[in-house]
Amino acid sequence: MYIEMSNEQIHGIIQDSLIGYNYLQEISLAKRADLMHAIADSIDALGEELITTAQAESALPIPRLQGEKQRTINQWRSYANAVRKGVYSEARIDKGDGASKADIRKYNKGLGPVAVFGASNFPFAFSTAGGDTASAIGAGCSVVFKEHPGHPKTSQIMAKAIVDGLVKFGAPAEVFGYISGSSNAVGEQLVVHPIIKAVAFTGSFRGGKALFDLGTQRNEPIPVFAEMGSVNPVLALPQYLEQNLTAFASQYISSLTLGVGQFCTNPGLLLAIKGESLDQFKLLLAQEIAKVTDAVMLHAGIAKAYSEAKSHLSNQSDVALLGDGISTEESRAVAAVYGTSATTFLGNSLLGEEIFGPTGLVVECADSEEMALVLGKLGGQLTITFAATAEDVAQNKNLFTLAQEKCGRLLFNGMPTGVEVVYGMQHGGPYPSTTDSRFTSVGPDAVKRFLRPLSFQNWPNEFLPEELQNENPLKIERIVDNQRTVE
Amino acid sequence: MYIEMSNEQIHGIIQDSLIGYNYLQEISLAKRADLMHAIADSIDALGEELITTAQAESALPIPRLQGEKQRTINQWRSYANAVRKGVYSEARIDKGDGASKADIRKYNKGLGPVAVFGASNFPFAFSTAGGDTASAIGAGCSVVFKEHPGHPKTSQIMAKAIVDGLVKFGAPAEVFGYISGSSNAVGEQLVVHPIIKAVAFTGSFRGGKALFDLGTQRNEPIPVFAEMGSVNPVLALPQYLEQNLTAFASQYISSLTLGVGQFCTNPGLLLAIKGESLDQFKLLLAQEIAKVTDAVMLHAGIAKAYSEAKSHLSNQSDVALLGDGISTEESRAVAAVYGTSATTFLGNSLLGEEIFGPTGLVVECADSEEMALVLGKLGGQLTITFAATAEDVAQNKNLFTLAQEKCGRLLFNGMPTGVEVVYGMQHGGPYPSTTDSRFTSVGPDAVKRFLRPLSFQNWPNEFLPEELQNENPLKIERIVDNQRTVE
Repeated sequence: MYIEMSNEQIHGIIQDSLIGYNYLQEISLAKRADLMHAIADSIDALGEELITTAQAESALPIPRLQGEKQRTINQWRSYANAVRKGVYSEARIDKGDGASKADIRKYNKGLGPVAVFGASNFPFAFSTAGGDTASAIGAGCSVVFKEHPGHPKTSQIMAKAIVDGLVKFGAPAEVFGYISGSSNAVGEQLVVHPIIKAVAFTGSFRGGKALFDLGTQRNEPIPVFAEMGSVNPVLALPQYLEQNLTAFASQYISSLTLGVGQFCTNPGLLLAIKGESLDQFKLLLAQEIAKVTDAVMLHAGIAKAYSEAKSHLSNQSDVALLGDGISTEESRAVAAVYGTSATTFLGNSLLGEEIFGPTGLVVECADSEEMALVLGKLGGQLTITFAATAEDVAQNKNLFTLAQEKCGRLLFNGMPTGVEVVYGMQHGGPYPSTTDSRFTSVGPDAVKRFLRPLSFQNWPNEFLPEELQNENPLKIERIVDNQRTVE
Repeated sequence: MYIEMSNEQIHGIIQDSLIGYNYLQEISLAKRADLMHAIADSIDALGEELITTAQAESALPIPRLQGEKQRTINQWRSYANAVRKGVYSEARIDKGDGASKADIRKYNKGLGPVAVFGASNFPFAFSTAGGDTASAIGAGCSVVFKEHPGHPKTSQIMAKAIVDGLVKFGAPAEVFGYISGSSNAVGEQLVVHPIIKAVAFTGSFRGGKALFDLGTQRNEPIPVFAEMGSVNPVLALPQYLEQNLTAFASQYISSLTLGVGQFCTNPGLLLAIKGESLDQFKLLLAQEIAKVTDAVMLHAGIAKAYSEAKSHLSNQSDVALLGDGISTEESRAVAAVYGTSATTFLGNSLLGEEIFGPTGLVVECADSEEMALVLGKLGGQLTITFAATAEDVAQNKNLFTLAQEKCGRLLFNGMPTGVEVVYGMQHGGPYPSTTDSRFTSVGPDAVKRFLRPLSFQNWPNEFLPEELQNENPLKIERIVDNQRTVE
């Protein structure tokens, strides 16, 4: 199933990515956006084979995969539209005075070929033709994609769709390179290759950190954006908890077990304040989770790691099982909720680590000060959720302020699973949730990761990229002599 | 002169920077801009003592220092104005549909306290109260500044002006922390401190790379923006050279020797094509440089390094002295121009290294293909200059394309020294000219380095930062439901 490529083959594919990059640099911004729509069309045209293959390889349900396919297409189209408007060109024109002040114009161009490592949990939206590939091409960068071992056939179908879209559009196939092989050395060869100018990764902390170290310690350091997940704490505040016991218990368990808990925004940690409400709430959680049937995870390795992590958690002192789900088969993942005290949590750093799967941990705090201590001890998070009334927040401003320093997305009620593809989305938080909190990997703003500014000083109009020409032929938004305008 | 602080003192100052950071996070964007103007006012009010002290410490001429003081004030004011408009808030509002689509709003907030290391060559504009400090505060980050050994007294006067400005405005002095000490360990302690969330540096490759490694390899990796200079190649193309022999020779030598060659954008390398014009041009360069009198460099260490680098260059085989300047005293820096062939240059990587000071190297290429080879061999540059007619460029599109991949600012004629503080400016290029080509350290866009996005999902209006409130109380530019607007 896995195609083992030789070092020479891999080198050749990386080398060829310059052909794709040079093509993307030559064509206009408008044509680049058209090309992205052409790739979206090509993915859209894929038939049942894509869904059934992905289902077989990932165990994800058909409706979820159908939805994810639409999301993937939407990513290409919405990123293309934002690129077309020039949002990421960030064109700035200072016309100077023809004398001592120069004519200086700046726009953003692609960094160069980008290495993309897909995630197993979203075989479409965060893999081969996922958001990283779409945003790199949106930035004018060619991509060399490393096949994910969890879904090689799905990946190959998707890669073919991308290349078909490129070729039909009249673009060189080298805009998208595809490499595979079972050893870690394949990924390493990719990241340290001098032609590669940036890396995008979604997956585990161990994998992401290893690529970050490789990328920042090579001869020419390059940016590595690794999204590595987090425990996404939910802060259940007293008034809200009291008023919403049943509904909130059901909502939390739904979110925790959604997609077998295989989301980077899975709310693995719930902080609440000791008391009668919490005692009732814990019983409700146990009732809710008891209704959840075990399920097949993405692949056997993940299921094994989940099972081990869960048993490791249950073996920690002063950690109690509050309740678990229905078990039907040994290979399936059983959902569970555990409980512990803030004191125990603060004394055992293992308890703050992510468990990839449907397991939650409820931490009982003496009061909101202790809750702040627990939150303060955590590393950076993709999301933090307040389960709170407005009054709860007003009475806990310290928690609200602290939470803003700790995450990329802050929710008021609702649940963090569900990451919408919009301008307003921030999917990326302080380390260790990602390696660079200044960027997002979801939403059109993901394009920014792969751009750098280039200034042109005193150039005749004919040599300027269209983004910076006097006539603004692309009708993009620009800052001209300190004023934003599309003129 | 140098105040040696203890580790405990330094730790205390870094710790206190959280007081400053929290204050900046609490006040509105408009007030933050006002605070920046207050600091500018305080610098503006500094009298002759600043100039005479800087003159004594840096040997820079009075008129240059007076100009640099105005530039520094202008940096604070122009960055403040851009911050006030919300250019860097990048507010995005997706209102959702009240049902399945959430209300998601994003803006940029400060990363946290920033460590700033100033440069010796701009004691005002790139040091204590320089662009890095202004842009970090513009981003809502407090600053801990490490005093530069080259101008401690100047630095202390400027630090006092910043603190006076803060206190007069009613802000805590901890917005700006100041540390000093003669050992490298002081800087290291600063960069690895867990409270510090980003680093800005301007100086040598060795210094910048050391800080980059410390910052990216600490427990929580942080962004390190180091601007480390470059050789800023000038490509003299045939038609232009033939038509502008005398004027261009004079212009090049002026730029090369401006400020005793102590600019990061100093054009240390000139590439030209063999022939009669070049032979004449080399004689003209020799004539021009013969008029340049030696001068005192920033400090003795820099003068010694310059003299050694120059003699090292002259000892390389097949490198010839074309001409040098007037020598009056041994401690002063004598300007010089050397010449070599492209073949020699391509075989000796030392010849592409920056010499900090007024020394240039002319590389004779057989033709434009060989010129492309020389350019291709160079690392990333802050600037590349075409000394060319439009026809020259049209006939050398390969060089034009290649140059865009190699630098942050591309000039058509003119000289790269002179870095204007405007939106269009890019001062930052591919490695090794900087450690992150995605950012600039000059112009208001420098603020971006210290920001990260934070999304608010489904929050009541009252809890949102002003940047994201429905009424847009700050009247900043935002993208609301996919449209840019100030409504």
